[in-house]
Amino acid sequence: MAKTGVTAALGFRAAGVACGLKKNGEKDLALVVSDVPATCAGIFTKNVVKGHSLKWSQKMISRGTARAVAINSGCANACVGEAGDRDAHEMAKLVSRLVQCEAEDVLLGSTGVIGYRLDLGKIAAGLEEAFRALSTDGGNEAARAIMTTDTFPKEAVRVYEHGGHTITIGGMAKGSGMIHPNMATMISVITTDACISREMLDRALRDAADMSFNRISIDGDTSVCDKVLILANGLAGNPVIDGEGPAYDAFVKALKEVSVELAKMLARDGEGATKLIEINVKHAPDRETAHLILNAIAKSPLVKTAIFGSDANWGRIMTAAGYSGANFDPGKVDILLGNVLVCKNGCAVPFDEEEAYKVLQTSEVVITLDLNQGTVDDRIWTCDLTYDYVRINGSYRS
Amino acid sequence: MAKTGVTAALGFRAAGVACGLKKNGEKDLALVVSDVPATCAGIFTKNVVKGHSLKWSQKMISRGTARAVAINSGCANACVGEAGDRDAHEMAKLVSRLVQCEAEDVLLGSTGVIGYRLDLGKIAAGLEEAFRALSTDGGNEAARAIMTTDTFPKEAVRVYEHGGHTITIGGMAKGSGMIHPNMATMISVITTDACISREMLDRALRDAADMSFNRISIDGDTSVCDKVLILANGLAGNPVIDGEGPAYDAFVKALKEVSVELAKMLARDGEGATKLIEINVKHAPDRETAHLILNAIAKSPLVKTAIFGSDANWGRIMTAAGYSGANFDPGKVDILLGNVLVCKNGCAVPFDEEEAYKVLQTSEVVITLDLNQGTVDDRIWTCDLTYDYVRINGSYRS
Repeated sequence: MAKTGVTAALGFRAAGVACGLKKNGEKDLALVVSDVPATCAGIFTKNVVKGHSLKWSQKMISRGTARAVAINSGCANACVGEAGDRDAHEMAKLVSRLVQCEAEDVLLGSTGVIGYRLDLGKIAAGLEEAFRALSTDGGNEAARAIMTTDTFPKEAVRVYEHGGHTITIGGMAKGSGMIHPNMATMISVITTDACISREMLDRALRDAADMSFNRISIDGDTSVCDKVLILANGLAGNPVIDGEGPAYDAFVKALKEVSVELAKMLARDGEGATKLIEINVKHAPDRETAHLILNAIAKSPLVKTAIFGSDANWGRIMTAAGYSGANFDPGKVDILLGNVLVCKNGCAVPFDEEEAYKVLQTSEVVITLDLNQGTVDDRIWTCDLTYDYVRINGSYRS
Repeated sequence: MAKTGVTAALGFRAAGVACGLKKNGEKDLALVVSDVPATCAGIFTKNVVKGHSLKWSQKMISRGTARAVAINSGCANACVGEAGDRDAHEMAKLVSRLVQCEAEDVLLGSTGVIGYRLDLGKIAAGLEEAFRALSTDGGNEAARAIMTTDTFPKEAVRVYEHGGHTITIGGMAKGSGMIHPNMATMISVITTDACISREMLDRALRDAADMSFNRISIDGDTSVCDKVLILANGLAGNPVIDGEGPAYDAFVKALKEVSVELAKMLARDGEGATKLIEINVKHAPDRETAHLILNAIAKSPLVKTAIFGSDANWGRIMTAAGYSGANFDPGKVDILLGNVLVCKNGCAVPFDEEEAYKVLQTSEVVITLDLNQGTVDDRIWTCDLTYDYVRINGSYRS
């Protein structure tokens, strides 16, 4: 096994086991442990309904350090009242006894169906098994254990040199379905051996998430349990990054790369998806305009089904931009499918249907709207809407 | 043939013909004519991209009177530049010559694919045929001719007595796909023989649309060609309704009934839909909160596929309310599927799965969120998201 994902950086061990929360017997419990206390930061769902495990992590992240992250799939631990808060606390205690730290040093995640209590008996047994299995090769197993309807585990790693030190950043993510800007049903854990202050780590995570996890949309829903956590344990031995400068810039650049790679994997693995769609807005008058247009297109079921059907129906793209709430002049807009210009100054132009079809048949479709009315560029990733999306989501609980 | 839809009221004749815009040879051109000039009002899409035929009608509606409405399906007459404006003007002229009125007295509608010019040769021939076929029994033919992916024509009629006068209001609508609050891909024409001032007609239409056409959502997209038009020709002979009072109230009540009936048919006939979904929010603190929550739930692909699969996955309903942007206390929310309570004070409650399954198996599923934090009630209609939605929209242009 290779050192991948959350175990790529020095001093992190992980494991993923099946404790019986998933009816199909697949892995459903991941444990990630740092050998030493790690500086931590996190970003949490903006949904006003919040899962109990998520609320625990949101509270503990403010302490600034953590030793372990435990994440179960198969049960969201959400909407079960105060019992859910007690269950989260108990789960953290179970981890703390194994790892020999405070319960408050344990971050949690739960993903799955809403409205059911966590089965702490299964989780207790699973955590013991996971603790015994902890390994510096365990990243991939952990990435598998947090999957719900994901079809493949998602991991990314960047290693870079700075000032004579080798720094590694690795991460895992789960998503599928519901992915949408502002931390949709998505959980990501990123680990690094960089030595960095809490404040700069928090800032780096927000910068990176803004260009990655907050730039993916699968179906416009955002869930109650989703978060990105980062742990930095300092074992790379670099001088602490505690302010702006080349060391911080190098760290953020690598973190962005890891985050974008994970985010694109999440979009590509949207439920039932056959294609990754990258939507670019160019020359927007401002960030808000670009954002509104990107979101409306990425969320449009009509655009997403047209791409599934390889139908160069660019009118739906224009329509979505039009109802996005953004204020722009449609008479200046060019639309490209791949490199095929299909609309110039808001008007249809003759184009080679066969060439457009070829673009839409690829597994990575790039759509560009050039607004020609400003200097702001932005982009978002999403996926097509297919029969399988309906199949998967028509019977998720069963 | 019965007097239905737009020909139910006195003095209106209509026809629907096939002029060759639809490749499959189905009816694609509707003509509605009032024997005398009619007071008119309209509501138009809020999409910043607007179809050329729609822009024509939006301009002419301000004149306050009209004689005829011509609507083609098969081609949206949108995004083709100034030629599209000229084509709309030409289409209005063609009608005006037949009906012997001013071109400015002709309202237009076009629905279908974006980015293609209108074939005025076909439309000219079709309008002549339609003019010859005009009949007081033609409402149903007209309703058929404006259909795109609709599976059935949509008509509604109300007849009421007031002050010794019999007043009739009838309408037709097309929708399917893309229906969403704020005049989505939806065209409706309503005719009445009531005598009513322009100002009160406009107000009545806005009141009625707000509780009907603006309360339906199929997939969250809103299109560039969509509108509701109303023509009132006064042939009922009632004293003019030119202010508030019992006569106005009776008119608005009947108009709302016609509008709600048409709107529910539009939701039920959403592309690929097998079920009409009515979502109720009760005891919201204010109208905005209710509106945000209703919209988020009605647009959620996860909720809509769960209903398709008859899966009592109420967590998705709660999740959608949570990310709607509305500010509310999730700890007070009750959720009912039909009459089955599945969530009380934001927490799961044990419920009879079989009973819930029965509710979800019906063709009209009612979901209720009781926020228990105010006095405002509101509702919206939508439909389930199915395999057929994907099939229909993956290949619309072909």
